Formats: sequence, structure tokens, C-alpha cells
Amino acid sequence: MSDTLTRVLDRVRAAHPESVQRLCDFLRIPSISADPAHNAQTAQAGAWCVEQLRSAGLNAQLMPTAGHPMVVATHEGPPGWDGPRILYYGHYDVQPPDPLHLWTSPPFEPTIVDGPKGKRVVARGAVDDKGQVMTFIEAFRAWRDVHGTLPCPVTVLLEGEEESGSASLEPFLKAHAKMLAADVCVVSDTGMWDIDTPAVTTMLRGLVYVEITVHGPSRDLHSGMYGGAVPNPCNVLASIIAQLHDANRVVQIPGFYDDVREVSAPVKAQWSSLQFPESEFLGDIGLKSGFGEKGRSTLERTWSRPTCDVNGMWGGYTGAGAKTVIASHASAKLSCRLVADQEPAKVLAGIRAFVEARLPDGCTYELAEFGAAPAFSVRDDNPFLGATQRALKGVFGRDAALIGSGGSIPAVGAIRTHTGADALLVGFGLDDDCVHSPNEKFELRCLLNGTLSHAAMLHEFGLMRR
Amino acid sequence: MSDTLTRVLDRVRAAHPESVQRLCDFLRIPSISADPAHNAQTAQAGAWCVEQLRSAGLNAQLMPTAGHPMVVATHEGPPGWDGPRILYYGHYDVQPPDPLHLWTSPPFEPTIVDGPKGKRVVARGAVDDKGQVMTFIEAFRAWRDVHGTLPCPVTVLLEGEEESGSASLEPFLKAHAKMLAADVCVVSDTGMWDIDTPAVTTMLRGLVYVEITVHGPSRDLHSGMYGGAVPNPCNVLASIIAQLHDANRVVQIPGFYDDVREVSAPVKAQWSSLQFPESEFLGDIGLKSGFGEKGRSTLERTWSRPTCDVNGMWGGYTGAGAKTVIASHASAKLSCRLVADQEPAKVLAGIRAFVEARLPDGCTYELAEFGAAPAFSVRDDNPFLGATQRALKGVFGRDAALIGSGGSIPAVGAIRTHTGADALLVGFGLDDDCVHSPNEKFELRCLLNGTLSHAAMLHEFGLMRR
Repeated sequence: MSDTLTRVLDRVRAAHPESVQRLCDFLRIPSISADPAHNAQTAQAGAWCVEQLRSAGLNAQLMPTAGHPMVVATHEGPPGWDGPRILYYGHYDVQPPDPLHLWTSPPFEPTIVDGPKGKRVVARGAVDDKGQVMTFIEAFRAWRDVHGTLPCPVTVLLEGEEESGSASLEPFLKAHAKMLAADVCVVSDTGMWDIDTPAVTTMLRGLVYVEITVHGPSRDLHSGMYGGAVPNPCNVLASIIAQLHDANRVVQIPGFYDDVREVSAPVKAQWSSLQFPESEFLGDIGLKSGFGEKGRSTLERTWSRPTCDVNGMWGGYTGAGAKTVIASHASAKLSCRLVADQEPAKVLAGIRAFVEARLPDGCTYELAEFGAAPAFSVRDDNPFLGATQRALKGVFGRDAALIGSGGSIPAVGAIRTHTGADALLVGFGLDDDCVHSPNEKFELRCLLNGTLSHAAMLHEFGLMRR
Repeated sequence: MSDTLTRVLDRVRAAHPESVQRLCDFLRIPSISADPAHNAQTAQAGAWCVEQLRSAGLNAQLMPTAGHPMVVATHEGPPGWDGPRILYYGHYDVQPPDPLHLWTSPPFEPTIVDGPKGKRVVARGAVDDKGQVMTFIEAFRAWRDVHGTLPCPVTVLLEGEEESGSASLEPFLKAHAKMLAADVCVVSDTGMWDIDTPAVTTMLRGLVYVEITVHGPSRDLHSGMYGGAVPNPCNVLASIIAQLHDANRVVQIPGFYDDVREVSAPVKAQWSSLQFPESEFLGDIGLKSGFGEKGRSTLERTWSRPTCDVNGMWGGYTGAGAKTVIASHASAKLSCRLVADQEPAKVLAGIRAFVEARLPDGCTYELAEFGAAPAFSVRDDNPFLGATQRALKGVFGRDAALIGSGGSIPAVGAIRTHTGADALLVGFGLDDDCVHSPNEKFELRCLLNGTLSHAAMLHEFGLMRR
């Protein structure tokens, strides 16, 4: 390893305690983008990132959008540079923390606790995505502390709406495509294979998220006086949801599988070689067996097959005790994970057609869209993949796994479209990090190794002069 | 009409403005029995009734139960009485008022407004059952004001748990059967045929009410990381709910129809003669056509056929915007309206068997019971029916309709079992009173005519000396 890099890695290790403190400061800001009541705090988290990036030597600013603002920062790298520019994407907003009563410590009071893998920080956003954003910001800081500059030009884009549909991202990318132009986009919002094995996520599912409301009688009714004689929106909605899958758990939305490609034999072989610990994956969440599309493995179900899940539903009386009411409407939040080459617009149209075909007389529906993004696969010839693999091997002493992921990062497709930058997904989360759940955490070892990895990747990118 | 009665009816009319004020006082007490946060106010409503009954000349007291207290009051009628004793049953508790935002005035600030049928009072409990309870209390008061006594002995029983399962009623009736013994039980918790036509409800559906919770993964999950590979409790619950009915809206709970009797031909003929205004009934709630068990009329569906409806359901994220979560559990409140001779215990067992047969591996369920009561029909030879019909004809100048009702009054079966008193259901509500809905109301004309009717019924009962 070159002395240039070794000195940066040493600096990262020495600064680790301060990095943890800075992450905790970030985690204390309840930047819940989905909830308008938290708008001021969400903006505050963006401003906090600007401050951090400036202190790491970047030229940073908060830029307004129709929604939450964008953090944009740049560094021009060494003088006379002739080579690639790296775009770093992340998000400073977090998911709502509910159900609150299941947290062992308050979600916005980051708490360092001992776990089987060492110390961890527990807080909403610990791994998704605040802790991961800090891995590259801290790497920038270490490079600047040791060498006074970064080894190559970088642009940073942090959005504040990733957890609530990224409505402003596409318009912003379109309006500022030139400013954000880059050769590759590095994203740290994914996971490792395990705590000792880094991973590059080369496949990512897309997402279509809708909220459906079924309206029936014009007011809430007494279930005794009207029960059995009128359409009950709760029952109607349940029936629509139930029909979304057949007995083999195959999704019944019209045209849903038209553009779904099977994974190639070599990729399937590589996945087999990973020896995915299915019983551990399921046992961790209290399950003995998987449940999903017939004839598919758990890895296929989560990495390469499209899905349709209810994310929330509500209607009628949900308080204590009994109320004999027929509600006048009922709602469900519903999302489909998409795989290449499904088109979000086609899936959305399919959902509308599916609902319309199943509404009884006397019922109407509304459908609100909360984001639509296609799936993503890394191009095999992406020149930054090899550089990243070398950097990761240097830090971890073992090869990175090339994996798929069931999650969606809507930014990835939009960034490719508008800036031309292909995405490189290198994340440091673990399967048991409780992403979107109570007691979300980030292992401090992952924070450290992530920062070391980004420092090493910057070094590799710096060797890619033309 | 006898002068004895005429004077009482005149007194009822003269006292009407004060009766309205007293009803408004009653309606201001938010006696929501289902919500423990309102326990003190629920008890306060009971105490208020005791005071009213005392001021009307009855010997009244509040008697404790394991839940909300019972109001019990008695009057021994004229000296040397040898004839029937009348038990009056009602309830002083009300349904929760939500959704609050749909009320045009606060639910516990009774508001007198003009409507197409004259003035009405808008408040939670206006018709169910506070306004109706006041019809007989005000009739007692008028008899006492004019004649210093009631024409026959009466016992009054008002419970505070009718809207939350009546858990204490059966134990109380059992423990105090002797004290509550009566020849007939008059209940005013039902409706008229229309505002000009009184009705005696001779059939009433029973009720089984449960809350089902489906548990799946041990914690909330990220729908991207786990979606498609694990059972989603919202989807599972929706599927169970959907299977409760077949395509003909026939309930699929095992054994559900075993004990269901068809209505006799003469009763069906009487129902036809009523010329039920179906399009008005449905149009009032924004519907053009009915929806229910195939081959049945709307009257059959609501009066003589059993049903199964969701009264509430919830699971996952129900806030603003999008959250990509798979919830670890989902719940539904579910109730069946029963008809003679369905056994509630058998229906409950059927619901459990139904759910168990449809739970996928990895899911468990809990079922909470919130009340179970059989259906009710008045015996044809009930000697109080004729007396009541005469009294109603005297007040309204037309025959009372003998009708069924889809609602349930669990007290009716329990009272018959424990006190031997058959029930006589004479109520003064209207179909558009928004029972259990926002903007519940009671027509002041119904309050007056109800009070006149009870005064006249008391007179008729007083002529039934042995």
C-alpha cells in the first residue's frame, strides 16, 4: 500500500472517536421528511451537512427545491487534474420512527451500546443514511487533513426527500445537469455481505408506491342498520388486496411480468456460491420458513423478482373496544418492488386497471402516487468497479461480494439519466441494522471500515488520470 | 281519550321546552364507555340519570358493577296495585365521536338546528340512546306532575356499557334478578317507520364482535430487503377478510347458516306491504343500488339475514407520505349480525376455525371477544303488544308498523333470560339520524311524540289490572 494512502488511513483511525461524535450530532436532528411537522428540522439537517462539508474543505451550499433543499458540494481535486470526477449521492432525511414504544432508547437520542460485533450507535437514520453519508464525508476530511486536497475532483449531492418519494430530485437533476455532471456516482446506502465481507450492489429493485382509498357510502353507518345491504369499503379494499396475489404468490396486476427478465445463469451461479444463510436471515425476524413466489429462492425473491406489498392500511374504528360502524372509506399504502426492465408507468397503469376491475357498484377510488423508479443493474464494463474492488480488498483483506438488493434507490436511475453517471453502490450496512424499524443501528466498526474504504477508493480513483 | 290521559299529554306538551333543555344537559356529558379516559364522565352521566329519575318521583340509585355503574329506579304505582310491572331499559353511554372533523358542531355541545322536519338536536347520543331514554323519563315526570303517581309500577334499568359490549349486564341481571323482575321490558333504542308512523320492532339481530390480530415477522421490516420473501400480516389479514364472503356475498364461516331460519310467508307479506323506500334509503347514503347476499331484498338483508362486516382495520404505516415497511402485525375489528336461532358461541368458534385454516406458516393470531348476543323476536302472544299499538295509534292517529331491525340490543336476550320479561321495542329514531356517525341528531318532534307515546303506553298498562 502506498504511503500516500497509508497516512490517510491512519488519520481516519485516529479521528474515529471524533467521527462518532459528529455522527451523533447528525442523528440528533429529527429530519423526518415525510412529516410536514418536521420541515424545519429536515432543513436543519441539510444545513448541518453543508457545514460539515465546508469544514472538510469542500465548497458547499444548500440549494432550494419545491420540497426539502439539496446539499451540493464540490472539490476540484489536485491542480491540473485530467481524469474522472466522482459524484457522491446520499440523503440526510430519515424514516418516521414509529412505533415509538418499541424503541429501547429515544430514536433521536443516539445511544452507543455494546453488541456482539462491538459498539454500535442506535438511532433513527443510524445506517439509513446518516451513518453512511458520514463515511465519505469523514474520508474527505482525512484526505484534506493529511494532504490538503482530495486526490480527484468530487461533487456531493445529498437530498432530503429520499424517504418520502424524492419528488424534487428529478427536476433538480434536470435543472442542474451540467453542474452535477460526473463520470460515476458513488452511493453508500446499501449493505455489506457480512461484517467482514464488503459488497458492491450491482442490482437494485425499483419501486412504485401508491395510496389507494376506496369510498363507499357517503357517511359512516351503523353496521346493524346497514350491514349486509351496502358495500363496506374495508371489506372491498381487503378483497382487492387479497386478489393481488394468486395461490402461488404470483402478482396478478395486468402486464406485471411482461418485461421481467430472468437472471442469467452465471449470476445465478455466483449467487449460489455466496451460500446465503437463509435460516439465519429468516430466524432473525422470527420466521422458520420463507413465504413468497412459488419455486423461487429467498435470494431470488428479494433480489431479482418483483413484489407487491401492503405497507399500511386503515379504515373504520381503530380505537379501544368495539364500535359497530361501517366506515365510508378505507385506505391502503401499497408498493411494488420492480426489477429490470419493468416500466414504472406501466405498473402504475396496471394497478389502476386492477383496482377499477374489482370495485363493486357504489364504490369509487382515489389513487395517490408516492414515487416511481425503475430497477437498476451496473454495467459490466463500468471501469470504476475494478478500482472499487481493489480498494475494498485492501481495507478488508478479502474480495468484495457482487450482490443484488431488494431495496430501491430511486436516485440511481435518475442520476444516470440526467448526469450520465453510472452508479457504484458500495454500502456498509448489515442485515440486522433494523433499517426502517425500531432500534435502527450502525456498527461503529462499519462506520470505521466504511470511512477507510472511501479513503482507499478515492486513492484508486486518483490513479485514474487520463 | 280519557281525561286522565289527556291531562298528562297536555302536561308533556307544555313541558317540552324544559324537556329539550334537560336532554341538552344530558348530551353535554361525554359518556364514551369504550374509552377508559372517559370513565369519570361516563359515571357522571349515570349519576345525572339518578337525579332526573328522583326528581320525577322514582326511588333511584347508582349500583356498582365491575365496569360502569347501573342506574336502577323503581316506582310502586298506585296503592293496592294488582297487575303488571313494567321494566324500562336504556343506556346512558354513547359511541366514540370520531371522526371528529366531520362534525358540523362539537359532538358534546348539543346544538339545536333547523331541518326539513323541524328543529333537531345534533350531538353524540342524541338519539342513541340519551334522547330516547328521556322520552320515558319525561313521561314519568308528566304523570307524576299531573296525578302525583304513575298508573302502574315501574322499574328502570339504565346501563353504561351498551356501546362497548355490555360486559357487566348479564352478571348484574343474574345477581339482581328478583329486584328487576317484571312482566314486560320496554326498550326505546330503535326507530320509527317514518316521522309520522310509529313502529314496534318485533325482530332484532344479534351480534358477535371480535378483534383479530395477525402476527408475522417479529419486527417491522424494510419492504425492499424482505418484500416478497416473508408473510406480510397486512396482506394475510386482507386475504382472510376477503375470504369471509363468496362471490354471492354468502358468509363462508363454517356452520354460519346452520341455524338460520327463513322468515315466514305472512311476515314476508307484511314487509312487502310496508313498501320500503329502498332507493331513498340507499340514496340518503350516496348509493344507487344495494350490495349484499344474492337474491335477497334490502329489507331481508338488514332484518332477517346474518352478516359479517369489518368495523375497523389497521396495520403498518398510516401517516402522511410513503414508508416502505412491512408491519409485524395487522388487526381488524369484525362483527357478525346474527338472526334467530344462530348461537353466538358457535359463530365465535366458526370465526376461530376460519382464521386458523387460512393462516400461512410463520403467522399467528390473537382474537379478542367484545360481546356476543343472540337475535330476538317478540312472541306473537305478548299481551303488551296490543296495549302498545292502541297507545301509539292514539298519539299518531295511525297504526304502528311491525318491523324488523338490523341492529342489536344485547340486553334484550339477557333480560328475558334473567328476569323473565319479554321485550317490547318501541323507539322514536329515524333512518337519517346518523346513529354512530358524525352529526348524530334527534328530531325534537320525535322527542315530543316519543314522550307522548310513553305517557299513553303507561296509561294503557295501567288499565291491565288483574
